[in-house]
Amino acid sequence: MSDRDPTPHTHDYRVLQREEIATLLAQWPAVAARLGGQPAQWTVQDVADGNLNAVYLVEGPLDGLCVKQSLPYVRVAKDDWPLSVERAYFESAYMQRTEPFVPGLVPQFLHFDATLRVIVMERLQPHTILRKSLIEGVRHADAARAVADFAAASLFHTSDISTPFERKFQDVALFSQNHDLQRITVDLVFIDPYQVHARNRYASPQLAAVAQSLRDDAALKAAVATFRNHYLAKPQALLHGDLHSGSVMVTQTDTRVIDGEFAWVGPIGFDTGMFIANLLMAWYAKAGHSGDTTGYRAWILEQIAVFWQRFHAQFLAHWNTHGGRGDGYPDSHFDATALPTVQAAFLQDVWADTLGFTAIEIIRRTIGFSQIADFGAVADVDLRARQQAAAIALARDLLLHPARYEDVQALVSAVPAFGLH
Amino acid sequence: MSDRDPTPHTHDYRVLQREEIATLLAQWPAVAARLGGQPAQWTVQDVADGNLNAVYLVEGPLDGLCVKQSLPYVRVAKDDWPLSVERAYFESAYMQRTEPFVPGLVPQFLHFDATLRVIVMERLQPHTILRKSLIEGVRHADAARAVADFAAASLFHTSDISTPFERKFQDVALFSQNHDLQRITVDLVFIDPYQVHARNRYASPQLAAVAQSLRDDAALKAAVATFRNHYLAKPQALLHGDLHSGSVMVTQTDTRVIDGEFAWVGPIGFDTGMFIANLLMAWYAKAGHSGDTTGYRAWILEQIAVFWQRFHAQFLAHWNTHGGRGDGYPDSHFDATALPTVQAAFLQDVWADTLGFTAIEIIRRTIGFSQIADFGAVADVDLRARQQAAAIALARDLLLHPARYEDVQALVSAVPAFGLH
Ligand SMILES: Nc1ncnc2c1ncn2[C@@H]1O[C@H](COP(=O)(O)OP(=O)(O)OP(=O)(O)O)[C@@H](O)[C@H]1O
Ligand SMILES: Nc1ncnc2c1ncn2[C@@H]1O[C@H](COP(=O)(O)OP(=O)(O)OP(=O)(O)O)[C@@H](O)[C@H]1O
Repeated sequence: MSDRDPTPHTHDYRVLQREEIATLLAQWPAVAARLGGQPAQWTVQDVADGNLNAVYLVEGPLDGLCVKQSLPYVRVAKDDWPLSVERAYFESAYMQRTEPFVPGLVPQFLHFDATLRVIVMERLQPHTILRKSLIEGVRHADAARAVADFAAASLFHTSDISTPFERKFQDVALFSQNHDLQRITVDLVFIDPYQVHARNRYASPQLAAVAQSLRDDAALKAAVATFRNHYLAKPQALLHGDLHSGSVMVTQTDTRVIDGEFAWVGPIGFDTGMFIANLLMAWYAKAGHSGDTTGYRAWILEQIAVFWQRFHAQFLAHWNTHGGRGDGYPDSHFDATALPTVQAAFLQDVWADTLGFTAIEIIRRTIGFSQIADFGAVADVDLRARQQAAAIALARDLLLHPARYEDVQALVSAVPAFGLH
Repeated sequence: MSDRDPTPHTHDYRVLQREEIATLLAQWPAVAARLGGQPAQWTVQDVADGNLNAVYLVEGPLDGLCVKQSLPYVRVAKDDWPLSVERAYFESAYMQRTEPFVPGLVPQFLHFDATLRVIVMERLQPHTILRKSLIEGVRHADAARAVADFAAASLFHTSDISTPFERKFQDVALFSQNHDLQRITVDLVFIDPYQVHARNRYASPQLAAVAQSLRDDAALKAAVATFRNHYLAKPQALLHGDLHSGSVMVTQTDTRVIDGEFAWVGPIGFDTGMFIANLLMAWYAKAGHSGDTTGYRAWILEQIAVFWQRFHAQFLAHWNTHGGRGDGYPDSHFDATALPTVQAAFLQDVWADTLGFTAIEIIRRTIGFSQIADFGAVADVDLRARQQAAAIALARDLLLHPARYEDVQALVSAVPAFGLH
């Protein structure tokens, strides 16, 4: 498979059955060696909990592996929503492109089968999905820091700051072919929630008036258009493209980012904003409960500050260490006196984008198709709708009055004012 | 040659001799038929006056043709500056992609030979290059209007406003492979003039202090970085990429844009700014002459206003007629009441970019490698350097105080204040 042109061997593709996995893996010596023993000794467990793909965990005498296959439809909707299986190609390309910059922050990439669209990667254990730990009120002290490190390194090293544009445009040309998933993002994140659409799934009647008010708000839709156009036409760096709390696996000492199938060269703030939005929604989903969630909620807000501040510091650290070897900010133009101003302006722009994408992610997760488990875990539908309305009120303010949120402290301090009302 | 992957048949490529052209054209029936008669009756004239390519005009009994071949080096520098011949592929791809939107404003595309990198197109006659007419003080009353129409149509119809992103990203993937010429733009336009570089060719000692002051101006270089990063990472529409007065051929009744070999998906203001900059430099190059150039210079400034106002009006007209069928500003989000605000903001952003690229084009044409004939025609080197310094003073103000230039009238009115001093 060439760098530019993922060849679709679609005729030989088939959806694998659990029973076939061991035989498949046995073909690949390095993979088989990692499991150890004989295929008959390997156990295969179906663990898919996402929306899109088949995922199996395989255990052998020596080690375990994770096997992910893309399916020719959206797993949760099946025949109603066909989808190209090419996404596995892009996820594997993303893993291979970024792993050198973020070793230890992602599962190790092991193998890609271009025909069956199967990725084999390191099996993470005993990790849990960060979203789950947030719902359960567990503190994973290092997660926000680690995701910040992941974002800073993967984004910096694929940007015009670090990389000659010729190299960056290989990424642009390659990942711009990831149309199917980008269409999902464009529609579900940026378009559907602001119009009447059958895919929207907000609580009705509770949020009907809120949804209507978004549709009626021309200024808000104009702000959304700015960020939608940034998503489409601001290729700053190779994005993960789906960096929410469901794409992060954690233990108390280890954090890994998974699931880069939405990879795309776009605005840096898309990744950072999506992560912040999902922390914020975890905060909102704990509002109005009987149990004492005060401490945990304060901790979540702290994590948002930790995440942004660490991202900011690490991005700068990469810049200062690696230098401006790309065409964006060549070292020859900026000496040590001039550079900090330019860097501050760059990161201020990323912050502005972060705020916008944070808001848009909140709106799409409450109004649009892809609802999240944090709110889903709130059994009282009226309470849940009030939490969501409060989150949307914050999102609206972020879009309409961004000047109120000049830094992450301003954001974090403002959040409680948009609590339940 | 596939849409994505220009296959380099480099082994069969060779630089054509004038004597071979007729035999070559005779192979292509449609081309031969257009010339009429027999190859022996065709005359072939070498008219290359540009920096990069071989250009021949062929006359037959029925009609003439223009034949352009890319050479494996920069024509004016030859062995010192090798260059991929692939650029002809991109020029032909640009012609074919845009001609449907701008018929009558470009020479008709007739044939492309992927092996020899030969483009055959309509021969324009009795057209002259607009730059030449500006130098000679000839008024081509319709040129600015026509170039504005060209820019508005070609840019609108390849943008996210009009076109689903899947289609736009075919353009991005294709033209992002036009590395060699983009490297020229990045280096010669955006990087070299702001550092000491052997390629820079400003008048010395006359402009040495000015060049030094640009290199020393951190705020200016930060502003340039913003626009360089827009060039690299703001793919709004398929740009011509080299829309100066040397890429426009005119008669009193007809105007055509040629030479799209720098085509690239980038910020709309890059095309509009480059055109305005070259009109401005024509104005500066007439300063301090003994002859009465007052009327002609006033006319040039008028053309700048005509160009931008017409571009603005036509871009809006396309938007209103064709609708927002792309993903940038979908019709479903903006009704007739809301749309004008969004459109105004979009075009204000294009104006801001236009100003920046105008300034950068002026600086690179006076300090950098690619000097222009307008100034070259000024025999008195000291006078020329003073004209250039005045143009650079304007450019600097555009970069450092863009708020002073909120519209084209503000720009045009300010220009005389930056006259010779
Ligand atoms: N490397 C791994 N090690 C262990 N478990 C994993 C690994 N990768 C994925 N999983 C498990 O499989 C689940 C689904 O994985 P993933 O999120 O990559 O799939 P998806 O179908 O793309 O999901 P989504 O709908 O979120 O896009 C994860 O939530 C996690 O529980
Ligand atoms: N279609 C045409 N009909 C008549 N003459 C043409 C045509 N196209 C180009 N020419 C002539 O050939 C010259 C060179 O063409 P063109 O600008 O396309 O070449 P180039 O080598 O790419 O130049 P540059 O250095 O400006 O990029 C033009 O200035 C013009 O005089």
